[in-house]
Amino acid sequence: MLSEFDLIKQYFVRPAHASKAQLGIGDDCALLGVAPGRSLAISSDMLVEGRHFFAGEDPRRLGHKSLAVNLSDLAAMGARPAGFTLALALPAADRDWLAGFSTGLFALADAHDCELIGGDTTKGPLNICITVFGEVVSGQALRRDAAQPGDDIWISGTLGDARLALAGIRGEVVVAGDAQRQAEQRLHLPTPRVALGLLLAERGLARAAIDISDGLVGDLEHILERSRVGATLDVDALPAGPVLAGYDPELRRAFTAAGGDDYELCFTAAPAQRAAILAAGDACGTPVTRVGRIDAAPGLQLTDGQGSPLELRLAGFDHFGNGTP
Amino acid sequence: MLSEFDLIKQYFVRPAHASKAQLGIGDDCALLGVAPGRSLAISSDMLVEGRHFFAGEDPRRLGHKSLAVNLSDLAAMGARPAGFTLALALPAADRDWLAGFSTGLFALADAHDCELIGGDTTKGPLNICITVFGEVVSGQALRRDAAQPGDDIWISGTLGDARLALAGIRGEVVVAGDAQRQAEQRLHLPTPRVALGLLLAERGLARAAIDISDGLVGDLEHILERSRVGATLDVDALPAGPVLAGYDPELRRAFTAAGGDDYELCFTAAPAQRAAILAAGDACGTPVTRVGRIDAAPGLQLTDGQGSPLELRLAGFDHFGNGTP
Repeated sequence: MLSEFDLIKQYFVRPAHASKAQLGIGDDCALLGVAPGRSLAISSDMLVEGRHFFAGEDPRRLGHKSLAVNLSDLAAMGARPAGFTLALALPAADRDWLAGFSTGLFALADAHDCELIGGDTTKGPLNICITVFGEVVSGQALRRDAAQPGDDIWISGTLGDARLALAGIRGEVVVAGDAQRQAEQRLHLPTPRVALGLLLAERGLARAAIDISDGLVGDLEHILERSRVGATLDVDALPAGPVLAGYDPELRRAFTAAGGDDYELCFTAAPAQRAAILAAGDACGTPVTRVGRIDAAPGLQLTDGQGSPLELRLAGFDHFGNGTP
Repeated sequence: MLSEFDLIKQYFVRPAHASKAQLGIGDDCALLGVAPGRSLAISSDMLVEGRHFFAGEDPRRLGHKSLAVNLSDLAAMGARPAGFTLALALPAADRDWLAGFSTGLFALADAHDCELIGGDTTKGPLNICITVFGEVVSGQALRRDAAQPGDDIWISGTLGDARLALAGIRGEVVVAGDAQRQAEQRLHLPTPRVALGLLLAERGLARAAIDISDGLVGDLEHILERSRVGATLDVDALPAGPVLAGYDPELRRAFTAAGGDDYELCFTAAPAQRAAILAAGDACGTPVTRVGRIDAAPGLQLTDGQGSPLELRLAGFDHFGNGTP
């Protein structure tokens, strides 16, 4: 079976092609040079019913999440949101659905001063495609290929509650009603870490960054591959979400390390920046936690809290390798 | 039933909202100011199987057409293609399909020096969403709201062969095999008029422009509405495609005036520019034909070759009002 990454690599990446883009396929955003010293960060995400959200999903939450996953890509580049286009395929022009969807969408757009500038609507199986644009000073963008040996690895916010909510819905884990509702907030209404990404970029604190949408381990491996480095990750240092924190260590490890749908930032930074990074987290009200370090030798080593090697059965989310959500 | 235009107007256009974009929803492209004197023209189009193309459509042609319809929006703004993102939902990762699609896509992309800079792939009902970026000097963009009374109305290329091909496929009109194949070239492999759009903008020849994707009459009415003007259109002056030219006048009138899927430019220009516009058409190998004039009084008057009023039963294509393609 052809994976999503192989598919893109084989059919859509053209390594021998001279590129006008400062950064093309393979990062959270592409960077298009638009003026001396300024780049436009651009990202597209497509959300499909039954794949990225359940049929019958509340349209207001869906409006929020559709834009949130795109803003999260801007956050991972350290870019300031500027605008977005929306292409929408709908089975029918349902007024209640449209009112809810647009309300959720614009509430988040307004909070980030990110304007809807155009798009397309058509009839078809429910599909939401947003392309988002952000501004970044050239050279300040947080790229996947910029990690250096000796860097700390940091995580924003907490991990795993979104995956726990999914486990509760699927019946993989028993989650009590209140806890399930709390966890589902993280699944359905993720908070893109735009302010943190901006501070990390503008203050020159972080080197590489990625947003954790497919699970930390899988996403971190993109940084390692592009930066040609390795890493050691203290799985027990990963900050579990408040609901997941009450569960046993094995589940906590699996869902923090490879849960997916967290939309937190994973970033690397020189150890000299530790105090400044904690201050940046404070300044924007987003906790940040140090969880590992970048190594010169390739490979990702997982350890427990004592530094002993840890074997976890983990898999990143692959849109052509896995089943439904 | 809620039409596509009403849907966008009611749920996604916010008139009271202060806009950072120089031009937002309602033109062929949005314009984002990116540097003093320079704008980025941005357009998104979503193509859905069974709506914009038939199930089982040749993937190579589909790759071409998916990008062509977006480049046509840049052409209608007079913008120079810079890059595009591709979001793709596929029922399965089919290697033959992917090879064909990417071949058709990149052949056209390379011809216009328009680079694939990013995107998304996922599993789902076949859906192709492209967002295209182009550069334009601020103030040179060809906008829908710039037509002035007394302007000539011009059409690039020829009209109606794409609609005739569709009629042949649907069995509405009998079209002989060779003629059908020729007409289908226009339906499946449209030529975006990028070079003409660029000349019209850079030489300051045209005022308003739009690309004819939904049928000339419907698309021209967008110019009239946004420019607060009317127009008189000589339907018998409309340049019919070489296949359609052999059919009776009534069919020719209907399919040139409201056929759809032509991806030609309709633009307005001062009469003083006539010779220069013909020269621009010559310079880029695209015939241009004068077909009417902009009036101060609102309303679109259709006439025959003798200037007598003409009644045609015409309807523009609306994605929520009409049936399948």
